Amino acid sequence: MAGNSFGTLFKLTTFGESHGPAIGGIIDGCPAGLKLDLDAIQKDMDRRRPGQSKIVTQRKEPDRVEFLSGIFEGETTGTPIGFLIQNADQRSRDYSHIKDVFRPSHADYTYQQKYGKRDYRGGGRSSARETACRVVAGSIAKQLLGDMSIDAYTSSVGDIVLGKSHEELDLSLIESNPVRCPHPDTAVRMIERIEQIKKAGDTIGGVITCVIRNVPAGLGEPVFDKLHAQLGKAMLSINAVKGFEYGSGFEGTRMTGSRHNDIINEDGSTQTNRSGGVQGGISNGMDIYFKVAFKPVATIMKKQDTINEKGEAVEMQGKGRHDPCVVPRAVPIVEAMAALVMADYLLLSKISKH
Amino acid sequence: MAGNSFGTLFKLTTFGESHGPAIGGIIDGCPAGLKLDLDAIQKDMDRRRPGQSKIVTQRKEPDRVEFLSGIFEGETTGTPIGFLIQNADQRSRDYSHIKDVFRPSHADYTYQQKYGKRDYRGGGRSSARETACRVVAGSIAKQLLGDMSIDAYTSSVGDIVLGKSHEELDLSLIESNPVRCPHPDTAVRMIERIEQIKKAGDTIGGVITCVIRNVPAGLGEPVFDKLHAQLGKAMLSINAVKGFEYGSGFEGTRMTGSRHNDIINEDGSTQTNRSGGVQGGISNGMDIYFKVAFKPVATIMKKQDTINEKGEAVEMQGKGRHDPCVVPRAVPIVEAMAALVMADYLLLSKISKH
Amino acid sequence: MAGNSFGTLFKLTTFGESHGPAIGGIIDGCPAGLKLDLDAIQKDMDRRRPGQSKIVTQRKEPDRVEFLSGIFEGETTGTPIGFLIQNADQRSRDYSHIKDVFRPSHADYTYQQKYGKRDYRGGGRSSARETACRVVAGSIAKQLLGDMSIDAYTSSVGDIVLGKSHEELDLSLIESNPVRCPHPDTAVRMIERIEQIKKAGDTIGGVITCVIRNVPAGLGEPVFDKLHAQLGKAMLSINAVKGFEYGSGFEGTRMTGSRHNDIINEDGSTQTNRSGGVQGGISNGMDIYFKVAFKPVATIMKKQDTINEKGEAVEMQGKGRHDPCVVPRAVPIVEAMAALVMADYLLLSKISKH
Amino acid sequence: MAGNSFGTLFKLTTFGESHGPAIGGIIDGCPAGLKLDLDAIQKDMDRRRPGQSKIVTQRKEPDRVEFLSGIFEGETTGTPIGFLIQNADQRSRDYSHIKDVFRPSHADYTYQQKYGKRDYRGGGRSSARETACRVVAGSIAKQLLGDMSIDAYTSSVGDIVLGKSHEELDLSLIESNPVRCPHPDTAVRMIERIEQIKKAGDTIGGVITCVIRNVPAGLGEPVFDKLHAQLGKAMLSINAVKGFEYGSGFEGTRMTGSRHNDIINEDGSTQTNRSGGVQGGISNGMDIYFKVAFKPVATIMKKQDTINEKGEAVEMQGKGRHDPCVVPRAVPIVEAMAALVMADYLLLSKISKH
Repeated sequence: MAGNSFGTLFKLTTFGESHGPAIGGIIDGCPAGLKLDLDAIQKDMDRRRPGQSKIVTQRKEPDRVEFLSGIFEGETTGTPIGFLIQNADQRSRDYSHIKDVFRPSHADYTYQQKYGKRDYRGGGRSSARETACRVVAGSIAKQLLGDMSIDAYTSSVGDIVLGKSHEELDLSLIESNPVRCPHPDTAVRMIERIEQIKKAGDTIGGVITCVIRNVPAGLGEPVFDKLHAQLGKAMLSINAVKGFEYGSGFEGTRMTGSRHNDIINEDGSTQTNRSGGVQGGISNGMDIYFKVAFKPVATIMKKQDTINEKGEAVEMQGKGRHDPCVVPRAVPIVEAMAALVMADYLLLSKISKH
Repeated sequence: MAGNSFGTLFKLTTFGESHGPAIGGIIDGCPAGLKLDLDAIQKDMDRRRPGQSKIVTQRKEPDRVEFLSGIFEGETTGTPIGFLIQNADQRSRDYSHIKDVFRPSHADYTYQQKYGKRDYRGGGRSSARETACRVVAGSIAKQLLGDMSIDAYTSSVGDIVLGKSHEELDLSLIESNPVRCPHPDTAVRMIERIEQIKKAGDTIGGVITCVIRNVPAGLGEPVFDKLHAQLGKAMLSINAVKGFEYGSGFEGTRMTGSRHNDIINEDGSTQTNRSGGVQGGISNGMDIYFKVAFKPVATIMKKQDTINEKGEAVEMQGKGRHDPCVVPRAVPIVEAMAALVMADYLLLSKISKH
Repeated sequence: MAGNSFGTLFKLTTFGESHGPAIGGIIDGCPAGLKLDLDAIQKDMDRRRPGQSKIVTQRKEPDRVEFLSGIFEGETTGTPIGFLIQNADQRSRDYSHIKDVFRPSHADYTYQQKYGKRDYRGGGRSSARETACRVVAGSIAKQLLGDMSIDAYTSSVGDIVLGKSHEELDLSLIESNPVRCPHPDTAVRMIERIEQIKKAGDTIGGVITCVIRNVPAGLGEPVFDKLHAQLGKAMLSINAVKGFEYGSGFEGTRMTGSRHNDIINEDGSTQTNRSGGVQGGISNGMDIYFKVAFKPVATIMKKQDTINEKGEAVEMQGKGRHDPCVVPRAVPIVEAMAALVMADYLLLSKISKH
Repeated sequence: MAGNSFGTLFKLTTFGESHGPAIGGIIDGCPAGLKLDLDAIQKDMDRRRPGQSKIVTQRKEPDRVEFLSGIFEGETTGTPIGFLIQNADQRSRDYSHIKDVFRPSHADYTYQQKYGKRDYRGGGRSSARETACRVVAGSIAKQLLGDMSIDAYTSSVGDIVLGKSHEELDLSLIESNPVRCPHPDTAVRMIERIEQIKKAGDTIGGVITCVIRNVPAGLGEPVFDKLHAQLGKAMLSINAVKGFEYGSGFEGTRMTGSRHNDIINEDGSTQTNRSGGVQGGISNGMDIYFKVAFKPVATIMKKQDTINEKGEAVEMQGKGRHDPCVVPRAVPIVEAMAALVMADYLLLSKISKH
């Protein structure tokens, strides 16, 4: 209700500010008897972790997840899985310069308006640090999905656009470079662009594409909780996201129905997949794919005009170690949120029929 | 849970198939003491109604809403508002040709996979007919919003694109033409395009832009239930929607942070509004605006290959009276869903502070 | 949220005032493919109906339920089941004497305090008329339960107490008399008592016992949503209920652990059943049984002092046709609420294990 | 959904097994700007703590609560409050004797049936240890309630019954003795009884009465979420609870309406309070009071027959340090659950009127 839970049957609730002692969460509704690969979880955490490459923030956060309950002898027990991630890098002095200041295009002003009070240190609850908890839960969700696979990758950085569909790419190459683009030549150009932007003290946006394969037909709920609507909400809830499209997306608005329709083969598959694997809000067994738009990070190393809590004009400049482009580290977050949705809908699908 | 409810405090639950005796819903959580303008509700219904102009479906549905509870002496009582809309145009014989056939890019196949059984008449529950209930509830939600205004309009039909921002337009012109585009010259071209497409027995997609003004700062919830995430889910839950973007949207991914950031004025307003009125998931008092992508209607008046329930290849052709472009009638639906979100978050905001 | 929904996966939402045009509801989450026996539903409705015998209210309400959606060719389709019950007996003039008056031990005063406005006709939303919708949904829930059986019966009327456990009774006799007590001799005494109370213009309370048999072990959720906690909430939500106990109940508080513990047999059954079929909130396969306390109906045919909306002392007297004892008609309501809980938890149990 | 959350707006989610590293929880929805008295929270924790007196279990658990988020400069920030309680006394070897055995009237058998797997150490999730988290959250909820006061006390132990209503007692005496009975003479007899039972290696049940005063009129939701129904669920969710009654309770079933009705005074108060402060599910401003029945603790220091996981008959005997009577330590738990309900409904009441 107050915004810190996601999912209905497979449900994640999180807590924690960027500069408190720890962040963490509770996964409620994970079925019993799932053998957990804890290394796989930490591996996903490492993909999101600061300091993993030269094109991301150089903050030091080991981001080790500690499980406190719900797992016994290596398997889930059906009871809630509580977990913690210590905040190692709580250098509060770094943030004294923003104590009374509303940073442009951050949540400082809006949190103050909503709550009348805020933990200003590092953005507090509005910091993207909370996404670490999403990755923990999403990684467990992935393990529940069996044959389904979820792969996200960077498909654009600023105006460097990967002009190929996911079917033309070798997704096993995603992790072969720090920008997480499965097309090596484009990856090189993206990295160059990020380095150039970083040098200028600026930031840049980008797009992540995500593909979910081996989805059984029949996942999704009618009307308000359509599968793609929940995927959209999941993605839009990630910090810095400005847009979501699936299947033919905005491009599909220019097509005619006769071109856009996916003709059905005798085995139930379709000849094209402009539907993006979802029809009427329910999966049809084809690949689900969608794009997520990320704005440029708001913290820049340049002077900007803004106001303080008294409404006085002041000048400020970002300090510290921020991401010049959030997209490479957001790839595992997109996967995690997709996994949470798919796990939830997989469980929901078990009660569709009598 | 099963997908037929929307909202948390201001909550709509709907029922009904396109060819059953009636559709309807229950609005639970509307505060007591709201004077209702029933004419305004019917007016919104008439904007969604079939047969309202020559560029929409010519089905005959008066779409009169009948309230059964929750209203006493012209005011809400705080108890659930039950309502009904009779299905006047239940010509089931129109649909005998699709009884055993899975129409391309419809929900026939996926409902069958999910439920093992479906009411095939006119799409049953997956028909866009259910959106009439959304308009009823959304119209009541609008009346709860006080000074806030919600205006949606057609900003593209196929490749006919209205190339102006909402700030450059006179939104009072939206209802001056049947395509609901506030730019008269562009409206003429859009109408021509729809007529041409209709003549060809085909359909076309389009984009709707929606603007919410006079929003108080502080609406929205952190992390998973960000205001724009819920708006996105609301829009993506509407039939035929393929994408959602707010503020700078996908275009913003190409910008640098120094250009994208909205500098804050001393009164808390911002010099630009790339944030789209929402920062960190919470409204900042600026206009909220977003775009919604609609695919072309899947039912076309041309022969298409498909399969039947036995998995045999068959040929089919749309019959009846369908929309050549769903966008003009979807404008009030977009507004309704936006109103449902805003009403819900307005109520939620009342408990943010002690 | 606003109190008019019950259940999580098998979910009922209701609307309607006693003197509006109709009451009704939506059942969302009933799995597809359940063959419905509509006569069985009406039969349960008839057990709750006014005017069914001389010991209940003589109001005339046929209470015919009309289904509007979610059922196709005699089976559920998985989509929401909308239904209506017309209010035949809307004699609003009967209630003019209570328009401005707060009746003692009714909800008039509290609704006024909460909402600032109320539909005073016949109690409006607070009338027990809404329980008709519960019976509709509960009757469908029963059909989902397969082998499980749910039988409620009157175990006391005032000080006439049926001093036998459910295991000593022949529950097939419940419907053999109008008071719904499976012990014919006691039934006669109960009926006499109700007639005597009615003649005096007064009312009397009573207790209903409910037994659920053939429950699979493993239904229930840990901690907050224990099976008996949800059964308790379900019963306490019925009008006039003042208490709930299951298994050994209040009597069990006087026992020692060595006497109270249920020794487990090799087949998993227990030698005694003081646990009432539930241990740690989860069913163990033994009979679930509980008692529900109903206070005397507040409307009496005698003069009482009270106040009006202005806070002035006034005298009032009940008019119309009220139940001298609510218990006989509450039996099917208790069963219905029990069925809603069991159906919901049966669905929830399908996702406990991987 | 999976049972580990309580509340709608003021919502507690908990995790943790009795013998894992820690238990804890997340409180989501506590409004911002509440000054917290952390000592008061620890004081409530100490009232629930093992080892506090000679009539309770002698386990050693300091039960220090550690807050990880949602509090800044001594006030709540509106973001989720995460908290931890370390499990100091994890002596797993104590439980080796129950590894494969289903203890009579415990949740061992039912958890095994539901989940197919369980953490057998000390009851795992089904242990009453989780109630420590309820006390943390309830104690914060109390601080949100302003003038409202919540006082629970022991009103019976076995057949030692405190035969006075709460209005005849001095509730400031509750904490004056270890059994938490505000009637000193009766307290002495209760303590003697518990010591006698303990010496016999047995256990005994009891009843707790709870009184909520200074409740504003108008709290509660209609139909399914009646205030007393949620209080009942809250109480029934506490380990070992078998029954709940409020106001006149089961005794009220023997009364006539003319005697049971509470006549309303000109100021809205009532001359009697058989309603227990709630009418039609909504508070009327009078004291809310209710009774909660606790069965005797199932773990006894005597030999009992039972079965193991293979279904073989075995003999077992309780070991370790258990409560001979759970009631004294359950008093703060009853208060905590009552506080959670009242805080939630207080927030809900803020949106009843437009």
